[in-house]
Amino acid sequence: MPAPKAVIDYINANADKFIDKLAKAVAIPSISGDGKHRGDVVKMAHFLKGELEAVGVSVELRDLGKHVMDGEELHLPPAILGKLGNDPKKKTVLLYAHYDVQPALKSDGWDTDPFKLVIDEKTGRLIGRGSSDDKGPLLGWINNLQAHHALGLELPVNIKICFEGMEESGSEGLDDLIKAEAGPGKYFDGVDCVCISDNYWLNTRTPCLTYGLRGLSYFKLKISGPGRDLHSGVFGGTVHEPMTDLVYVMSKLVTPDGKILIPGVNDLVAPLTDKEKALYDRLDYGVEDVESAAGGRIAISSEKTTVLMGRMRYPSLSIHGVEGAFSAPGAKTVIPASVSGKFSIRLVPNQTPDNIRAFVEKYVKDEFAKLGSKNTLEIEELHGGKPWVASPDHYNYKAAVKATEIIYGKTPDMTREGGSIPVTLTFAEALDVNVLLLPMGRGDDGAHSTNEKLDRSNYIEGTKLLGTYLYELSTVQ
Amino acid sequence: MPAPKAVIDYINANADKFIDKLAKAVAIPSISGDGKHRGDVVKMAHFLKGELEAVGVSVELRDLGKHVMDGEELHLPPAILGKLGNDPKKKTVLLYAHYDVQPALKSDGWDTDPFKLVIDEKTGRLIGRGSSDDKGPLLGWINNLQAHHALGLELPVNIKICFEGMEESGSEGLDDLIKAEAGPGKYFDGVDCVCISDNYWLNTRTPCLTYGLRGLSYFKLKISGPGRDLHSGVFGGTVHEPMTDLVYVMSKLVTPDGKILIPGVNDLVAPLTDKEKALYDRLDYGVEDVESAAGGRIAISSEKTTVLMGRMRYPSLSIHGVEGAFSAPGAKTVIPASVSGKFSIRLVPNQTPDNIRAFVEKYVKDEFAKLGSKNTLEIEELHGGKPWVASPDHYNYKAAVKATEIIYGKTPDMTREGGSIPVTLTFAEALDVNVLLLPMGRGDDGAHSTNEKLDRSNYIEGTKLLGTYLYELSTVQ
Ligand SMILES: [Zn+2]
Ligand SMILES: [Zn+2]
Ligand SMILES: [Zn+2]
Ligand SMILES: [Zn+2]
Repeated sequence: MPAPKAVIDYINANADKFIDKLAKAVAIPSISGDGKHRGDVVKMAHFLKGELEAVGVSVELRDLGKHVMDGEELHLPPAILGKLGNDPKKKTVLLYAHYDVQPALKSDGWDTDPFKLVIDEKTGRLIGRGSSDDKGPLLGWINNLQAHHALGLELPVNIKICFEGMEESGSEGLDDLIKAEAGPGKYFDGVDCVCISDNYWLNTRTPCLTYGLRGLSYFKLKISGPGRDLHSGVFGGTVHEPMTDLVYVMSKLVTPDGKILIPGVNDLVAPLTDKEKALYDRLDYGVEDVESAAGGRIAISSEKTTVLMGRMRYPSLSIHGVEGAFSAPGAKTVIPASVSGKFSIRLVPNQTPDNIRAFVEKYVKDEFAKLGSKNTLEIEELHGGKPWVASPDHYNYKAAVKATEIIYGKTPDMTREGGSIPVTLTFAEALDVNVLLLPMGRGDDGAHSTNEKLDRSNYIEGTKLLGTYLYELSTVQ
Repeated sequence: MPAPKAVIDYINANADKFIDKLAKAVAIPSISGDGKHRGDVVKMAHFLKGELEAVGVSVELRDLGKHVMDGEELHLPPAILGKLGNDPKKKTVLLYAHYDVQPALKSDGWDTDPFKLVIDEKTGRLIGRGSSDDKGPLLGWINNLQAHHALGLELPVNIKICFEGMEESGSEGLDDLIKAEAGPGKYFDGVDCVCISDNYWLNTRTPCLTYGLRGLSYFKLKISGPGRDLHSGVFGGTVHEPMTDLVYVMSKLVTPDGKILIPGVNDLVAPLTDKEKALYDRLDYGVEDVESAAGGRIAISSEKTTVLMGRMRYPSLSIHGVEGAFSAPGAKTVIPASVSGKFSIRLVPNQTPDNIRAFVEKYVKDEFAKLGSKNTLEIEELHGGKPWVASPDHYNYKAAVKATEIIYGKTPDMTREGGSIPVTLTFAEALDVNVLLLPMGRGDDGAHSTNEKLDRSNYIEGTKLLGTYLYELSTVQ
C-alpha cells in the first residue's frame, strides 16, 4: 500500500525545514577517524537523540566502551538504539544508518566550507560533508517519523533503530553489540528484516536496490634484508635488495587486465548463470559511465557486462602501494631495508577471508622461494570481511521495488556493489533475516571525496521513498 | 714531509673544540633537497664563511642563480670559494667538500634528534646528520687552517676552496661554475690537483684512497590512468590499474640476484683484466664485511671478489620506491591514479647517462606495450652522472699514501667506489688535473641513513691526515 497522501503532502510542505535540519546535522563535524573530533561525534549522537525523542521514539545511547586509535585511548561514540511501536500484528523493520563522517578540510579542494551545508540553487545540490554519506539518508527516516508524529498517524510497521557513529572507522564495537542483542528477549528480538540506507545509485538517473556486496582480504607482504636503509652506490650490486624481490612477487599477483594469478582463488567463485548474466545486461550503466566516473578511458573491457561483472560479481586484486620504500618527490638513492607491499582482494561468494588466506600465503611464499633471495618474507592479513548476497526475491526487496516505482516511476536496477559495508553481513548473520540496501543518493555524490553533495530531489523524493517503503512493507507478502 | 709536531699537538689539544664546532654545524639542518630548509643551507654557508675568514681565508659566496625543485622556484645556495696563499713556488691544491646534508627525521628511526650532535662516550661515536657526510671532513680542513693560523705557521701549499651546498641534490649550478672558472686568469687557474674528502673507508679499520667512482642514471617511471584516486571496492576489476602495470614493468628491470635485464646496458662494461681482478682479491674487505655493513646476511655471492666487483666495477640497478601510491602504515583500499617508480643504474666505464638512456627508455616502453594496458607511461631521467677513474700513480695519490702511513701506520687500500660524486668528474675534466678522494669516515658511518655517525678518532686523526697530506703534497715528486 502506498503512503497516505497526507504524509507525502507533509514532506512536500516541509522540504525546506528538512533541509534546515540537514544543515544542522552537517554543521556538526562528526569525524570518527580523527580523535580531535570525537566530542563532535558524541554531540551528533545527542542531537539525534533529541530529534528522535521529539517524534516519539524511545531512545537509548548505548555505551560501546573504549578503543585505541593512533596510539590514543578514546571512548567510542554511543550506538543509538530506538524503538517505536510494538504491535504484534505488524512487521518489525530495523533501520540502520551512521551519523559519523569522513574527514574533510577546505584545503583538500572543497569549493566551500565542508561543514556548512550550501544549497546550490542552480543545480539543486546540497553540498557538505555527510550530506549524502550518511546524514541525509538517516534524516530521511526521522523526517518520516516527524510527518507521522505531526499528523497523528500511526506507523504501518514497528520500527527498531540502530544508528552508529563509527562506520567510517571500521564500525568498532558494533558487531559485538549486534551479536549481544540478537536472540529472544534481546533488543533486536522480533526484527523481521533490515533496511540500510548507506549506498548509491549506479548512475545519476536510475534508482537501484543493492542485494550483494563484495568482501575483502587485505594483505601486507613484507620483505626485509638489510639491518637499515642502504645507499645504492655503496651496496647496489652486492646484496639482495628487498624492493627488487617485492616487485617480483607483486608482479605475480594479477595480470594488467585484472586476472588474479593466485591458484585456487578463482575456483571459489560461484558459477555465473545465464539468468544472472542477463541481469547485468539490463543495468542502466555502461562502460562510458565507468570511465567517466574513473576519469579516464581505462575500462578493462569494451563490453559493458564484463566491466559491470568485474565490479559486482567477480573478485579483483588491487595493489595499493608500498610502505617503507622511498615515496616522496625527487630522487633518493636508497635501498630500503624493509618494504611492505599492500594489496587486497575483493571477495565474492563463495570466497571468504578464511578460505582465501591459505591460497595467498602459500602462493606468495612459493613465488618468493623461486627467487633464491637471501631476504626474508612475511605475509600478514591486515583485515578481512566476507562477501554478502541477499535474496532479491524476498518481500523486503519487493516492498522496495514497489516503493521505488511509486516515487520514481521506474523499476529499480538490481545491483551488487563492489565495496564492503561489513555491518550488512553482521545483521544478516546475527539476526538471520533479509537485509536490503536502499540508497538515497546518486552515483556522483562524491562520498569520501571533496564537494560531497546530495541532490535536493534525492533528499526529498528519497524521504518519500523511505516512507513509502514502510507502507509497502506492511502489506507485501 | 710530515706535518710539524706543533700542528699535531694543536689538533690533539683542541679536539673537544673541534667537536663543538662540528656540533654547531650539525645543528644547522642544511637539507638541500627540501625547499623548507633552503634558508638553513644558506645559513650554513654564512657560518662557514665566518669560520674561514677567521682563519685568514679570503672568501666569496658565489651566487649560483635559481632553480625549480618540486614545482617551486628557489634560489640556489651559494658556492663558497676561498683562497689562502699565492706562492708560485708552492703547489696549489683545490679542496672540495659539501655543506648540505640529506633529509633526516627522528621518525625515520633515529635514536636521537638527527640535528643535535650526540657524543656517545662508550663507543666514541659522534652521531648526527652530516657528521660524516660531509660536515666532519669539511671542518677537518678548517681545523688545519685554524691550527696554522693560531700557531702563526704558513701552509706548505697554496689552497683554493670550493665548498658547495647542493651536493645531495645533484650539485645544481656547480658544474657551470667550475667550467666558467677553469682556464687562465680564472678562479681555479693554477690548481695543480684536487682533493675531495667525501667518501669512506671500505671497512672500519683500513684507510683507503679512492681512484674510481660509478656514475648514475636515475629514472622516474610514471604510469597514469584514472583522473583521480579510486576506491578499489568500486573500481577494482573494472579498470586498468597503474600500480599493477608499474609493478610489472619494474619486475623486468633486474633479477633478484642483480643481473640487469635491459639489453645493451651490460655490453658497455669495460672488460676485466687479470691484473685488475687481482687488485680486488687483495683488498682488506670481505663478504662478511659487506654483510656486517648491510646488517644482514644478504650478500649477492659468497665470493669476495664477485661481491667487491659488484660494488666497484660493475653496474647495478636499484628500485628505490614508488611515489603516488599508498605508503603509510595501515590499510587503505585505494587505486592510486598515478604512480611513479623510481629506479637508478650505477654506471661504470664505458657507460654514460647518454649511452644508457636510450636503452632504458626503449626497453621500458617495449615492456609496457606488451601489457596492452590503457594507462599511459612516461619515463624521465631525473639526473645522471658519468663514471670516473683516475690514475693512482699520480703524485697526488703518493702524497696521500704517505700521509696515511704516517697517521695510521698502514698503507691504504686502493679502491673504486660504488657511489657517485659527480663533481669529481667535473673537476677532472674541466681543470684537467688529477683528483684524489681522501676519505675521513669509516664504512659503517651510515651516510644518508639513520643514526649517521663519525667516529671521534676518525674526526681527529682524519684532521691530522688532511694536514699531513698537505705537507706531503708540498714535497712529493
Ligand atoms: Zn556511509
Ligand atoms: Zn562512508
Ligand atoms: Zn657527501
Ligand atoms: Zn651524501
